[in-house]
Formats: sequence, structure tokens, C-alpha cells
Amino acid sequence: MSDEISRFGSVQLADLPEDLRERIGAIAEKSGFVPNVFLALGHRPDELRAFCDYHDALMQRDSGLTKAERELVVVATSAANHCTYCIVAHGAILRVRAKDSQLADLVATNPWGAQLDERRRAIVDLALALAQDPALFGEQDLTAAREAGLSEDEIWDIGAITAFFAMSNRLAHLMALRPNEEFFLLGRMPKRR
Amino acid sequence: MSDEISRFGSVQLADLPEDLRERIGAIAEKSGFVPNVFLALGHRPDELRAFCDYHDALMQRDSGLTKAERELVVVATSAANHCTYCIVAHGAILRVRAKDSQLADLVATNPWGAQLDERRRAIVDLALALAQDPALFGEQDLTAAREAGLSEDEIWDIGAITAFFAMSNRLAHLMALRPNEEFFLLGRMPKRR
Amino acid sequence: MSDEISRFGSVQLADLPEDLRERIGAIAEKSGFVPNVFLALGHRPDELRAFCDYHDALMQRDSGLTKAERELVVVATSAANHCTYCIVAHGAILRVRAKDSQLADLVATNPWGAQLDERRRAIVDLALALAQDPALFGEQDLTAAREAGLSEDEIWDIGAITAFFAMSNRLAHLMALRPNEEFFLLGRMPKRR
Amino acid sequence: MSDEISRFGSVQLADLPEDLRERIGAIAEKSGFVPNVFLALGHRPDELRAFCDYHDALMQRDSGLTKAERELVVVATSAANHCTYCIVAHGAILRVRAKDSQLADLVATNPWGAQLDERRRAIVDLALALAQDPALFGEQDLTAAREAGLSEDEIWDIGAITAFFAMSNRLAHLMALRPNEEFFLLGRMPKRR
Amino acid sequence: MSDEISRFGSVQLADLPEDLRERIGAIAEKSGFVPNVFLALGHRPDELRAFCDYHDALMQRDSGLTKAERELVVVATSAANHCTYCIVAHGAILRVRAKDSQLADLVATNPWGAQLDERRRAIVDLALALAQDPALFGEQDLTAAREAGLSEDEIWDIGAITAFFAMSNRLAHLMALRPNEEFFLLGRMPKRR
Amino acid sequence: MSDEISRFGSVQLADLPEDLRERIGAIAEKSGFVPNVFLALGHRPDELRAFCDYHDALMQRDSGLTKAERELVVVATSAANHCTYCIVAHGAILRVRAKDSQLADLVATNPWGAQLDERRRAIVDLALALAQDPALFGEQDLTAAREAGLSEDEIWDIGAITAFFAMSNRLAHLMALRPNEEFFLLGRMPKRR
Repeated sequence: MSDEISRFGSVQLADLPEDLRERIGAIAEKSGFVPNVFLALGHRPDELRAFCDYHDALMQRDSGLTKAERELVVVATSAANHCTYCIVAHGAILRVRAKDSQLADLVATNPWGAQLDERRRAIVDLALALAQDPALFGEQDLTAAREAGLSEDEIWDIGAITAFFAMSNRLAHLMALRPNEEFFLLGRMPKRR
Repeated sequence: MSDEISRFGSVQLADLPEDLRERIGAIAEKSGFVPNVFLALGHRPDELRAFCDYHDALMQRDSGLTKAERELVVVATSAANHCTYCIVAHGAILRVRAKDSQLADLVATNPWGAQLDERRRAIVDLALALAQDPALFGEQDLTAAREAGLSEDEIWDIGAITAFFAMSNRLAHLMALRPNEEFFLLGRMPKRR
Repeated sequence: MSDEISRFGSVQLADLPEDLRERIGAIAEKSGFVPNVFLALGHRPDELRAFCDYHDALMQRDSGLTKAERELVVVATSAANHCTYCIVAHGAILRVRAKDSQLADLVATNPWGAQLDERRRAIVDLALALAQDPALFGEQDLTAAREAGLSEDEIWDIGAITAFFAMSNRLAHLMALRPNEEFFLLGRMPKRR
Repeated sequence: MSDEISRFGSVQLADLPEDLRERIGAIAEKSGFVPNVFLALGHRPDELRAFCDYHDALMQRDSGLTKAERELVVVATSAANHCTYCIVAHGAILRVRAKDSQLADLVATNPWGAQLDERRRAIVDLALALAQDPALFGEQDLTAAREAGLSEDEIWDIGAITAFFAMSNRLAHLMALRPNEEFFLLGRMPKRR
Repeated sequence: MSDEISRFGSVQLADLPEDLRERIGAIAEKSGFVPNVFLALGHRPDELRAFCDYHDALMQRDSGLTKAERELVVVATSAANHCTYCIVAHGAILRVRAKDSQLADLVATNPWGAQLDERRRAIVDLALALAQDPALFGEQDLTAAREAGLSEDEIWDIGAITAFFAMSNRLAHLMALRPNEEFFLLGRMPKRR
Repeated sequence: MSDEISRFGSVQLADLPEDLRERIGAIAEKSGFVPNVFLALGHRPDELRAFCDYHDALMQRDSGLTKAERELVVVATSAANHCTYCIVAHGAILRVRAKDSQLADLVATNPWGAQLDERRRAIVDLALALAQDPALFGEQDLTAAREAGLSEDEIWDIGAITAFFAMSNRLAHLMALRPNEEFFLLGRMPKRR
């Protein structure tokens, strides 16, 4: 059943129920390709639908963290979990969102030590605390986040995105999910052209 | 904002959008109380809705693992993550589903060493491998699961439930979510009455 | 040689030397059952006798920590060591001693994060520091304990009980010692009856 | 209260109850000095008495492991726990018992990798498994020990000594117990003289 | 003293002793830029000279591992040590040497799980074993390497390169060494031109 | 190829190229024996030469740390890495350089907890931080070192020696390098005679 994309095989866009086909088709149109995660989760449409809903509720929320900051949480969490698919795919999105060709690699290679401004450092620190050793997560982590100026709403965003990718990373590890080759180069090149 | 239930406060059932109020109301009617997780996630209805959809897609699926086996995955994962809410709440459900007053405590106190039959042991081992050190998850884990007779579909269930509770456990740690007192005793008493 | 109680087999009360038979008989009379640990250690009467003497010197001391606080140290240490027998058995005693039906489960599921008053939190923190990574134990741990108001004598009690259960937990793991079923329910039910 | 020997102070031999004074006096006469552990535990005579009883029941047993093998378990366990007092003191005793001036240092510096004959390697492996991560201790450890020819009685000895020094090591860390200077050189010099 | 390149400052090429200026000048001519590591180590010319000699003895050896395989060891080791400079710089060299635009990122994000052919997998496994937990390194690691067809000479290369980068990675962490921006894109683009 | 000294065999002094034969011959003349590390690395003269150059640049530097302090860094690092050869050999040199027969054993058995004066404690703490978890190394470690009065130059020495022995320790683990028996006793005996 295993194929190039996932240990558990993958579907074609055309195999998905109509609502998912349209939803993911729209993403593909915008990106120029269908991110493999959708094809790999497609064998369980109910799970894929809930995955998309949860993802969008967290990553496309208008208030609170910026879109780039949300991707920063994803890259930091995925780096701590050594999730190749999510680092490569969301590293690309982070490069695009933050208009920064190095930030994703700096965070992905060493999220604990990357030299970031105070707000970004606090965001990454909170994500790492919850991602890595949740039993030790506590008031000291929240206090540090608040002292860096993060609001309760932003703290929730960081925590909830970290938690969601604790799931996504493990799904990708379960599947040995392969990143689309397009992600590797996305956002690395100077824009003029 | 913090209250007895969560660091981020909680809502009343009546505060929820209608669809969630009905859905969670039905659970409350059946259980005799509203599990705190719903009230604590209620400040973000879109996230709560996706959470419920994902949970039900995984935990109420008809084929594959039995309902008790699904709860066994939850208790083992939550034990590895030291998540008080999920161990206490799903420990109660496991006692009920498996009609066994000791199993949940044996797994919760030491999921690595609990003496289980071969199938249950294989289920718990797979969950622990993915929950704890996902970067090391690999073919050796899948091979062990298959050798114990687990199907690809069952393996997916175990992996996906483990991943979902990697998220849920971290949400509960983020909130310092308090278990309802009803869960502590549920399923512990001999049934005659 | 392995039986339901221990990998190394167990004795009957009647098989023990007279002094131990009387001593453990008295416990059994009070509890209504013989805790399995005594039957499992019975094949080495000299070791069992020293075990009982050491246990009683630490757990039945009149000054310093209360009896409930001593059991709190045991549950926290045993949780860090994932010792099923000691968590279940001493969790029951803690429920009885502290007249609290939830405390034992809260500490057993997550001793690092359980929300406790300052004195109990300091007791548990000191126990965890010595239980888990003794090479790093140092002045900072003692200072924190003193700042929470613990006396030198109480600190010794916490440290010595933690050390004793570092031993007991490992003996239980060596034997795969099974808790008596009576412990699972003890102290969970409202007292009126 | 802290002195050169222990954070919790130490007593003089003359301060001990008569039975302990005689018992430890006899050790001092044989060794030429009073090992610091006795003076440091002396402020709690009941605990010291139980400590000695338990120690002697395990370390002076006639059947099963040799005396040198018992000390080998102590040095390996204490190395895993980084206990300076026990490594230095029992390293000295191991040199004497095994008539080997290098074995103790080889095991103390790297108990996992020290090149030992099959029986000694199996003894050390079993001790390390129980000392370091008792929750993972299981049938695979016992099987390996049996395959190396260790009897059930010898396995018990190894496990029980490891457990006892899990306690002793933590007591020494609690006290920051200082080794007597005599131990550092004992058994290192060629015997002629 | 800290600058954009290193916490301990950096020199200019012209500041170096003549032999180093020529040697590193030659590298700069070939690459089009001076890799920051040389400027950052330049304040200690004797150490820089020995560093270069050791590096070249290991990385430019003609027999044994291919040049690409040597870089694979570096990327795997540096990933395990989360060394940003070495992952980014040697990831670029690996892309060039292996003529593969994805391999470096696959190994850097998850060296334990990257799906590689048997020989490369064995190379990476041996490097990770020595890099991460050297006290546990032993015959089982060497046996696995030999079974994958690696010669004694190749095993030495893998071990010695891993050891050298255990040093280099720590020097880079000490300095918070910043990768040159050229490295981020090197070897990522299709070759036509 | 494996012999008493190394898994990869060893050479005789006479087998080495002339410059190395003289250099190591001079050491042997001074010590009374050829330290095994030189014979074991001798099969790769270029690597041995760079190893000696790097070692001497770090360990025989005139300014900054004293020679005894440099050896203290080595023993602490090697203890954290459980490297038998380096602990035994450099423990001996530390005894000689510091004119202290206990210091090396105190640090080797528990580098985290050894009770040292403030300067030595700061030196060891910095070495341990970089040796053990380099990804977490950061400003907090440097600040602590500076607060204890260490200069930038001394901090570099500590960091660079720690890094060099991260390499040396791994080479010794790779080879299962055996310490010369002379090292075990060196510096332990009172000097008069």
C-alpha cells in the first residue's frame, strides 16, 4: 500500500469527496501543486476534513499572532519533533510569509539557540516548552511569555498551534510523509524575476 | 481569566453556539455532567468544533479497533505525556468500556511495563513509540505491530489516536485543565446495583 | 517460581518466621488483607525484616512531617519511577491519611505539575529532585525547601523517604509486584456508610 | 549543622547507642578508620540500625554471588548514579575483594562500556537496567541474565543490591557525603609490604 | 568583541599569518567567499592551523569513503548536535558533492528517520551512535556497520569525522557562529547554466 | 586488527614517521612510558600529527587558565562523556598538576555536584554546559562564567578544550582505548620518598 508519498498510500485529488476536492483544489491552484499531506490523509476523508478545519481555525485566524508568527511556531515545533515534512513545507511558507530567506533554516536547525528578537524568541520558547516536555509546562513559561508582551490570546494561539503540530508531526512520522519537491526551493530566491 | 477549570477560563454550556450546545448537551445528558474539556475549549468555538469532529472520527469509528482498545491507546499516550485530565477522564471511560476496574490504573502508572495480553501490549507499544520519540519511529515499530496481528487499518487507528492525544494532552497542559470529580470514581465500583 | 504476585514467587503468612508473622499479621488484621509486598519479600526473611524496620523508622516517626505528608512523598517518588504497586498501594493510604479522594491521582498522574499549596509543592519538588536526577541534587534544592519553611528535620524526612522508595520502587519493578485489588478502591468513597 | 562530612552534620562513635557503637567500632577496628557514612547517619539511630541490617543481609550473604561480585554491583550502580562516596568507598572494597587494582576504575568511569567477562558483563547490565530506568525493566533483562548463566537467586541478589544502593546513593547525595581519605588509595598498591 | 559572525569576534583574511592567509585565500577563490569559520577561529592562529590540518586529513583523504559520504557524516552529526553553521555550510557542500538537492535537508531535519539506501543508512547510524551517546557505543554498532559492508578503514573515517565534528559543532555553538548567506542557496538550483 | 590497546590496533613507536617518533619519544622519556593514545592513533600519521598540534596549542598555552585548570576541564568533560581513557590518564595529570590526590576522583565521579571553590566550579559548569547539550548553550552560560571572574580568553580556553575532548573522548570510545596501567596510580602517593 506504501507509495512514494506515504507508508499508507495516497489518493488522487479526484478520489476525494466533493467538498474536499474543491477545498484542496483551491490550495493546489494557488500553490501550483497539491501538498502531499492532503493526498496522504485522503484515505480517511472524515479525518482529513477535521484536520483541515482545525488547521484553518488556527492558522488563518485574523487577530492575535501574524501569519508569519504562526508559521514560526510550526517550524520551531516541527524542528523539536524532527518532522521532515512539516519543516520543509512550513519552512517554505515561513520564508514567504516573513519575506526572509534564512529565518526558517536558522530556527529549523536549532530552535533553542537561534538568535531572534525578543518577541520571536518568546514565541519560540513557549512553543518548545509545550512541545518537548509538556508535563513540566507551567506558570514559569506563561510568566516569561507575558513578560515579553504576549497577550493571553496570543499565548493561546502559540499553545494551540504547538499542540496541533504535535499531532501533525506524529501523523507525518507515522506515514514517513515525503515533502513535495517544490517546497525545498520555495521562497529561497530573490524576488525580482 | 483563570478559573477552577482552566488557566484560560471556561464558558457555560449556554454560551456555546447552538450546534455545539446541542452536541455537548447530548454528551452531558448521557454522562450526567459536562466534561470540563468542552467548557474550557468553548472560548474558541471553531477550534472546539474541529476538536469534536476529529475526536469522533477517530474514537467512534465502527471498524478496526474496539472502543475499549481506542481508550487504551488514549490512556497509554496520556500516561507517557503525564496528562492528568486525559488519564483521569479516559481512564474512567476505559474502565467502563473494558469492564475492568484495574486496567486503566495499571496502564496509567506504568504503560511500558504493564502486563497485558499480546494484542494489547502491541497496541500500547506502538502508541508509546509514536508518542514519546517520534523521530525514532520507524519500520521496526510497524513490523512489531504487524507480527502481533494488527492490520494496516488498526495501525492507522493507533497512530492517529496517539497523534490526536499528543495534541489533546498538550492543550490540557496549556490550560492546567482540571478533571471533573465524577471521573475519579466512574467505573470503579462493582456493577450490581 | 513466578506467581500472580511476583516474578520470584511469594510465601504465605504462615511460612514466615514468628516475629514477622506477628508483625505482618497485625497489619493484615487492621487492613483486612495482607499487602502483597510482604508475601513477595518473604523468601528472604532477613531482608524483609530490615525492610520493615527501615520503613517504620521513616513512615511512623512522630515528629516532623505529618503521616499524610510522608505518603505524599511516597506517591510523588513512585510516580516519577512509574512504580505501579507503590502508586496504587500508597495512593490508597494517602487518600485515607489526607482525607482527600483526588490528591493521590493528581500527584500520581503528574507530580511535576499538580497544583498544590506551597508547602506540599515544596515537599514534592524536593522528592522529585532527589528521585530523578540525584547527581544534580544540590544547594539550590535545599534552599528552595528552606524558603518554603521546611525544617532541616523535615528535609531529612523527605530525602530519606524518597531514597527508601527509590529502593522499594526498584524492588517492585524487579518482581513485577502486583497490587492487591483492595488498594484500588480504598479511600475513594464518601465515608458515610 | 553542616560539617566536613555531611550537610546534616555527623556524630562521634561515642555518641551512638551501645549496639551501634559496638557494631561500627568493630568495623573501624578492622579498617583502621570509621567510614563516614556511619557517622553521618548517626543522628537517626533507628534508621542507621535498619540501614546496617539491610546492608549486611545483602552484602554478607554466603550463597549466590561472591563478595567481589556484590561490590561490582555496587560500583556499577553508584557510577550510574554518580555517587562519589559510594564509588570511592566501594571501589576500594572492590579492589580488595577482587584483588584487581583497575577493575573499579574501569567500571566506575564507564559501566556501560567496560570490557568484562560474560558473567560480570551480565551482572553489570542487569544492575544498570534496574538502576537507571526501572519503568522499562522487564523480561528481556531477566532473559539476558539467565542466558549468561545467572540463577534466580543471583538475579535477586543483583536486583536487591542495586535497589539498596539506589537508596544509599540518594542518601549520600542528600548529605553531600564526603569519602574518608583512606578509601582513595586502598587496594591500589602492590601487596608486598 | 562580539560581531555579526561570532561572539568572540572575527579577523580579516589580511590579519592572518601568511600560511593561513594563502591557504584560506585559495578556498575563498574557489568558493567566491571566505567561510566564516576561518575568520572566527583566526584570533588563535595555532588552533586554526591545527583545525585546518585535521579537517583536511579527514575530509580530503583519497581512499575509503567518497567525498559525498564524508559530507553525509558531517550533516548527520551536526543535525544530532543542532549546529546551525555546520548544517547550513556542509549541507551546501553535500548538495554539491552528491549532486542531490534534497538529501541534505532530509538528513538534517531527521537523521534518524531519513530513508536512505542501505550503505548510507549504515554510515549515518554509525555516526549518530558515536555522536549522541558515546558511552553506549560498542560492538553492536561496529557489527551493524560491518554487516552493511563497511570496511575497517571506512568505519574509522566515519568515527573520526563524527568525532571531529563533535568538536567543530561545539566550537560553533561556543561562538554562535553565523553561516555565510551564500551557503543557504548553494547547490539548490538546477545546474543548467 | 584489534589488540590490547585499541579495536583498530596500534603501532610501535619505531613505526611512526620521524617527526612523530621524536615528539612522542620525548613524552615517553619524560613520563617513563608511551601513552597508549599515540600508539593507537599511529595508523593515521596525518591525523595523529594534527591531534598533537591541536592538543598542544590548547593545553600548553602560556596565558589564561593554569595548566591544572586545563586538566580540570578535561576531567570534567571526560566524566560527562564517560571516557575511561581520558578520565584515567588526565585524572593522573590533574593530580600531578594540582598537587591534589582527591580532586580528580571527586570531579570524575560527579562533575555536576563536586564541591569546588567558585572559580573551579564556574570552569567546570561552563565545560559541562558545552559538553553535554551544546544546542542549549547560550548567553546564560557565558554570563555565569563572567560573573565568576573568568575573562573572554579563559572562556575561550574552556570552550575550546571542552570541544577538543568532545572529539578525543569519542575517538577513545571508537577504539575502546585502554589506559596504560601507570596512569592508575600516578599522583596518588604522598611525594616524600
